[in-house]
Amino acid sequence: MNVVDHQPQIIYTLDLLGTVAFAASGALAGVRRKMDLLGVIVLGIVTATGGGVMRDVLLNDTPPFCFKNELYLYLAVAASVIVFLTPRSFERMKRAMLLLDALGLGTFLVIGTTKALNFHLGFMGSVIMGVMTATCGGLVRDILSNQIPLILQREIYASACVVGGALLYFLHQTDLPSSVTLLASAITVIAIRGAALVRGWQLPTA
Amino acid sequence: MNVVDHQPQIIYTLDLLGTVAFAASGALAGVRRKMDLLGVIVLGIVTATGGGVMRDVLLNDTPPFCFKNELYLYLAVAASVIVFLTPRSFERMKRAMLLLDALGLGTFLVIGTTKALNFHLGFMGSVIMGVMTATCGGLVRDILSNQIPLILQREIYASACVVGGALLYFLHQTDLPSSVTLLASAITVIAIRGAALVRGWQLPTA
Amino acid sequence: MNVVDHQPQIIYTLDLLGTVAFAASGALAGVRRKMDLLGVIVLGIVTATGGGVMRDVLLNDTPPFCFKNELYLYLAVAASVIVFLTPRSFERMKRAMLLLDALGLGTFLVIGTTKALNFHLGFMGSVIMGVMTATCGGLVRDILSNQIPLILQREIYASACVVGGALLYFLHQTDLPSSVTLLASAITVIAIRGAALVRGWQLPTA
Repeated sequence: MNVVDHQPQIIYTLDLLGTVAFAASGALAGVRRKMDLLGVIVLGIVTATGGGVMRDVLLNDTPPFCFKNELYLYLAVAASVIVFLTPRSFERMKRAMLLLDALGLGTFLVIGTTKALNFHLGFMGSVIMGVMTATCGGLVRDILSNQIPLILQREIYASACVVGGALLYFLHQTDLPSSVTLLASAITVIAIRGAALVRGWQLPTA
Repeated sequence: MNVVDHQPQIIYTLDLLGTVAFAASGALAGVRRKMDLLGVIVLGIVTATGGGVMRDVLLNDTPPFCFKNELYLYLAVAASVIVFLTPRSFERMKRAMLLLDALGLGTFLVIGTTKALNFHLGFMGSVIMGVMTATCGGLVRDILSNQIPLILQREIYASACVVGGALLYFLHQTDLPSSVTLLASAITVIAIRGAALVRGWQLPTA
Repeated sequence: MNVVDHQPQIIYTLDLLGTVAFAASGALAGVRRKMDLLGVIVLGIVTATGGGVMRDVLLNDTPPFCFKNELYLYLAVAASVIVFLTPRSFERMKRAMLLLDALGLGTFLVIGTTKALNFHLGFMGSVIMGVMTATCGGLVRDILSNQIPLILQREIYASACVVGGALLYFLHQTDLPSSVTLLASAITVIAIRGAALVRGWQLPTA
C-alpha cells in the first residue's frame, strides 16, 4: 500500500506478500461458499485491498492506493485465480497460509498507522487507521459471506494490531530512525499473532 | 459531531451524551453476541461514530469529525469498556438507555442536516444526511452482528428523523435564529420517537 | 449518473430508466422481507444509487452524483412507493423488470467506466469502477436483507459488466467517437446478460 515514499524496501516486499496472502484467504472463503470464478476474484480483491481503500477514503487520499499502483490488483486477481483452480493445495498449506497472513497483518498495520501519522491524526486515529488497514478487508470478506466477522470474535487477531499501532505511535515520538520503528512494530504484531496461534490464546468475553 | 461552529452549547452537550448512549447500545449488542473486549469496543465505536463518518465522507469533510476531535472516540471506548464490565446494570436500565438513545437520535439528526445545509445540499440530500448521521451507526452495528438492520423494520425510529430533517430544512428557509431551528427539530424527533416507544406505534407493511 | 458532460442524450434517458428499475428491485426485496414503507424506500434508494455513490467517493467527486442532481433520488423514492403500494403487479411483470434491469446494468457500467477513464484510472481501475457502479447497489441491497449477495453467485450478471468494461477501455484507446464506444459497450453488456437469462448460462464453480 505504497504510502511511505522512503519506506524500507522490505516493507514494500512484505506488503506485496501480504496482499497475496489476504487475497488467497478471501478467495478460499469464496470457494468454500461455492461462488463462481468472478465471485472468488471479487472476494480476493476486497480482502486484499478493502482495508487500505477504507483508510485512503477516510484520509481523503484518492484514488485509493491500489488504483494508483495497479500491481496490487493484478496480484490479488492472480492469487484468486490460482486458489480457484487448486483450492485443495491451499487447504493443505494451512500453516504456511496462517504465517503469511500474520506477515500481512503486521505489514498492513505499520503502513496504515504510518500513513495516519503523516496525515497528522492523533493517537486514537492513528491506531484505528492501522487496525482498519490490517483487518477491514477480512471484515468485508466475512460480511459478504454472510458471517459474523471473525475479527470481532477471534480477537488476538485485531488486538495484536492495537498493540503494534500503539507501539508505533509512541516510537514515532522518539528519535529512532523510521525503519527501526516500522520493523519493531511489525515484528511485534507478527510475534503476538504467531504466539496466539501456537498457544491458542484468547481474550475473555463478558 | 462538532460541525456547526457556533452551535448552541446544549447541542454539543447532547452530542456527547448521544455518543455515549449509542456506544453503549453497540457494546451491548457485542456482549450479547459473546464478543470479546475488543469486539465490544469496535461495535461501540462504530455505532457511536459510523453515521457521522459516512456523512463526512460523502460531504468530503475529511478526516471525519471524530478524528479531528478524538473526545468522541475516547467517550465511545470508555462507555464500551463499562458496558463490557457491567452489562447487567445496563440491561436493567433499559428505559433510561432508550431515553438517552432518543436524545442522541434527535441531536445527531439536527447536526447532520445542518451540516448538509452548510454544504449546500438540496432538500433530499439534507434529509438523507441527517437520517444517515442518526441511524447508520446502528445500521452497521446490525450488519456486523449479522442481523437485518433494526432501522429497516422498527420504523418509527428512522421516520422520526425524516420528519425532523424535513422540518429543519423548512425552518432553515425562514428568519428564525438557528438555535430555535435546531432545538425545535431535535425536540420533534425526540418527541415522536418517545411517543412511538410509549404507545407502540408502527408503520404498516405492504 | 450524469457524469459525462456531452454524453449522448440516450445514455441519460437509459440512466433514469435504470435508476427506476434498480429502485424497484430494491423496494421489492424490502416488501418481501416485510419491511415498512421507510425501509422499502431506503432499500430502493440504496439499490438505485449505492454503486454510483461508492464510485464517486473513491474518485473523490463529492458530493456524489445524486446529491448534485436530486432527480435520481426523487425517481428512486417514487418507484419505491409505487412498488410498496402495488407489489403484486411488479411480481407479475417479472420479465419486463429483468429487461429494464439489464438496460440499467449496461448503462451504469458505461457511465462508471467512462468516469473512471476521465479520472485517468488504469485498466483494472476503470473496469472495477464500472462494475462497481453497476452492481454495488444490488450488493448493498442483499447485505441489508442479510443474504449472500446475489452477484457473487449468479455471475453472468457481474461478468457481463467485466466484458463490457474491458471493451469500453479498449475502444476508448481508438479513434471511434465516444457515442459509438459507449453504445457498443452498453449493448454488449445488455446482450450478454439477456442471452444468459434466456439460455440459463452459468459460470463454473471450483
